[in-house]
Amino acid sequence: MSMGTEPSAADARRSAQREALLDAASEMLVHGGPDAISLRKLATRVGTSTMAVYTAFGGKEGLITALFEEAYDRLAAAEEAVPKNREPLRRLHDLALAYRSFALKNPSYYALMISSTLPVPDALRHGEAADGNPAARNVTGHRSYRIMLDAVTACVGEGSLPAHIGADVLADALWAAVHGLCSLELAGFHASAEAAEKRFNVTTGAILRGLLTPKGLKKLDGFSRAE
Amino acid sequence: MSMGTEPSAADARRSAQREALLDAASEMLVHGGPDAISLRKLATRVGTSTMAVYTAFGGKEGLITALFEEAYDRLAAAEEAVPKNREPLRRLHDLALAYRSFALKNPSYYALMISSTLPVPDALRHGEAADGNPAARNVTGHRSYRIMLDAVTACVGEGSLPAHIGADVLADALWAAVHGLCSLELAGFHASAEAAEKRFNVTTGAILRGLLTPKGLKKLDGFSRAE
Repeated sequence: MSMGTEPSAADARRSAQREALLDAASEMLVHGGPDAISLRKLATRVGTSTMAVYTAFGGKEGLITALFEEAYDRLAAAEEAVPKNREPLRRLHDLALAYRSFALKNPSYYALMISSTLPVPDALRHGEAADGNPAARNVTGHRSYRIMLDAVTACVGEGSLPAHIGADVLADALWAAVHGLCSLELAGFHASAEAAEKRFNVTTGAILRGLLTPKGLKKLDGFSRAE
Repeated sequence: MSMGTEPSAADARRSAQREALLDAASEMLVHGGPDAISLRKLATRVGTSTMAVYTAFGGKEGLITALFEEAYDRLAAAEEAVPKNREPLRRLHDLALAYRSFALKNPSYYALMISSTLPVPDALRHGEAADGNPAARNVTGHRSYRIMLDAVTACVGEGSLPAHIGADVLADALWAAVHGLCSLELAGFHASAEAAEKRFNVTTGAILRGLLTPKGLKKLDGFSRAE
């Protein structure tokens, strides 16, 4: 193994510290907004110097951008861990499970990704919307979104999902249902983990059935009979 | 008209000031968390005295509880404005539209209602969940939830929705989809109001179709043909 391909112990330490800083900052951001992020407090909490935080992120704005990048990268990594060789409809289901698992494991990152009140870094911004709403977030170019869209497109390609609605609208419909479930679960609206899981299964099953073509429904029923 | 039934000018002023205080406080809370709420700043912003804020809410904790009550009461009022004499399936659709309209008109109240990071007032709390998740929110007793649940129960009663899943699970499935849509729209994930509306129609239509019984599907198709 050469030094060029294997991370050194110093690299590993730097990477672990970066993750600890991001984890602590994500908590500060979602609980208190940008004003609650103090680079000095952050350094103290993680046991490093304020200078090290500046060196890693270039300041508060860079830190906030890094938080959003980390959040979307973790979601993408969770989706990339889903096996690619499954039937398109099963893959959609696997991706929904991976999304939920990501959200439950990374609640502070999930909260900042979908917050309607936190300022959006420029990298995620389309520009100000004409009607004074928050600027649209441009996540459609990120691989976390492309993976989902490609899976939907594969289902359209095999005729399981209809071609006339648009793969982007279909993907957003599935996303809305799965996000809504995760959001209500994280906010504590479900009385128990079992109650949350039952709602997850009923809701994701229903949104999929409601979107499928007759051919897609037949495929889905075939899976259920086989299980 | 007697003084007893008609609000006096002083009552109207007090009520308008209370609403102005709550509106300003809801913005402070969702942007900066509880630490960002300063009763003094709030009084200054609304043009009243800190003492008046104490008199109205008894302090910061009382103010936060009042914010959550105001949010759920506004949602309930929006749902109560929906005509009750429509077919059960149409009523579900009307309630979904009223929910979206409430969320878009009251973004700061909506953000605090469904936040996974803000502390939940005792009135909404079941108790700490065993697995360390945030304490469950007990909204099932509130009329904003009962109205939705009753509408679902009416659909089960006429055989449009299945009886074996449970009206609470069905209501939560519809809620997850509608909430997910509103949340993504408020966060700016949809490129335009038209894009958001298309996604709303496709997603609510799909979740409903996916849950309906064959009898319910026939009814729904009858509505579409009649329009």
